[in-house]
Amino acid sequence: MTIQKEFTLEHYLTAAECNAACEIPMPLLVQRVIDVATAHANFLGFGYVCLQAQGKAWVLSRLSIELKRVPMVSESLRFNTWVEDINRLFSERIVEITDADGKIYGYARTNWAAIDVATRRPTDLHLLLPQEVINTRECPIDGHPRLVAVGQPDSVATYTFRYSDIDFNRHVNSTRYVALMLDSWDMEFFDKNRIERFDVAFLAEAHCGDTVEVRVKTTDDAAVSELEIAREGVTCTRARVKFSPRV
Amino acid sequence: MTIQKEFTLEHYLTAAECNAACEIPMPLLVQRVIDVATAHANFLGFGYVCLQAQGKAWVLSRLSIELKRVPMVSESLRFNTWVEDINRLFSERIVEITDADGKIYGYARTNWAAIDVATRRPTDLHLLLPQEVINTRECPIDGHPRLVAVGQPDSVATYTFRYSDIDFNRHVNSTRYVALMLDSWDMEFFDKNRIERFDVAFLAEAHCGDTVEVRVKTTDDAAVSELEIAREGVTCTRARVKFSPRV
Repeated sequence: MTIQKEFTLEHYLTAAECNAACEIPMPLLVQRVIDVATAHANFLGFGYVCLQAQGKAWVLSRLSIELKRVPMVSESLRFNTWVEDINRLFSERIVEITDADGKIYGYARTNWAAIDVATRRPTDLHLLLPQEVINTRECPIDGHPRLVAVGQPDSVATYTFRYSDIDFNRHVNSTRYVALMLDSWDMEFFDKNRIERFDVAFLAEAHCGDTVEVRVKTTDDAAVSELEIAREGVTCTRARVKFSPRV
Repeated sequence: MTIQKEFTLEHYLTAAECNAACEIPMPLLVQRVIDVATAHANFLGFGYVCLQAQGKAWVLSRLSIELKRVPMVSESLRFNTWVEDINRLFSERIVEITDADGKIYGYARTNWAAIDVATRRPTDLHLLLPQEVINTRECPIDGHPRLVAVGQPDSVATYTFRYSDIDFNRHVNSTRYVALMLDSWDMEFFDKNRIERFDVAFLAEAHCGDTVEVRVKTTDDAAVSELEIAREGVTCTRARVKFSPRV
């Protein structure tokens, strides 16, 4: 049997889903990237339900999104995914984002581990995924950067996670970290700038009731900021955002 | 030409979209109810894009959702909508929520006005919608209740709206009000109770940077709470939530 190495989900972007610029919001884009990854894995028989039966779960470790242009309201999007690489601990999965005519918006790189839910220990992916799933098709965006500690931040905000921030794993939803980090800037800034590239690493879980600090530091390149979300003594996520001016 | 009086959208509920009980979160359910209403209106030629060309916009005024059971992870949902009534100021649109076999989860009632964006004045809907769009099919849930002021609340929380809370109209997204109101309860409460009915009225807009109070008062029926979200001197939303114990 040949394995279906690529898989596509469609998404019609409704008005009510859009942000103030009538574009797809980054948290929704991240959600759909995760969803198509999940759907392909489900389809191939090593998805959420299959792992759950073995007491295991997929964990998103890193995510990078780079956009040439941003999907706008009432557009029909296509999320096309494939596995680029598998090693013992991680699988690297690509998502290509296009319009209905196949014109490219951009790409996402996602890096996944599978853990044993009881022990929180990683699972050997070579035992879980057939090597034949790997697709040789190239992804044109750079790999995940090494995200280091923010150090002395330019700004710090605090937030306490509540019920609606929590996902099916009873941890904070990945998309809520993304929203919380982007809330470090105001409307005026987003009216003048758009996100060109967003890199995030999910390092440790946060839970309902946890109070976190969101720390931001703009780098020597003024368009690039480094961020981290941390609870007492534990860094939950690190991220890097590159903005480009709207023309 | 005959008008297509009913319209259906499907939604596959992914793991990453679910709440801590592996169910559809209420804000996502509200989102999809709004989306199918929008899609049907678009299909019939009086949707978002058509009104925008006339300097007008649909505004969701009231929403009531009642659920017999709650959609769970990996289920395929169907959102089936029709217009129940139209008067000069409001149109009442029903959304029936079922599984793939047509088994009922519940119903939503939505009440919409169309405003002139520049003057914020309502538009006569008789001039906008053909009367033939009305479907005689009955919706079994009660109409929107009259939601009165909370009075002396049992609890008050404050929140300042940020960039990610804002929608394409540059106001706070309807689903964010819903999330914010439900965050008045903790995980332990939601582990023991589910939402049986949720009624909300959208009264005034809030904007990025507005600080609001979320006020909650439990009524004589301990399962029913009244809520309101208010900024300085202005009530933005009122809601009523009825919980039922999980068995």
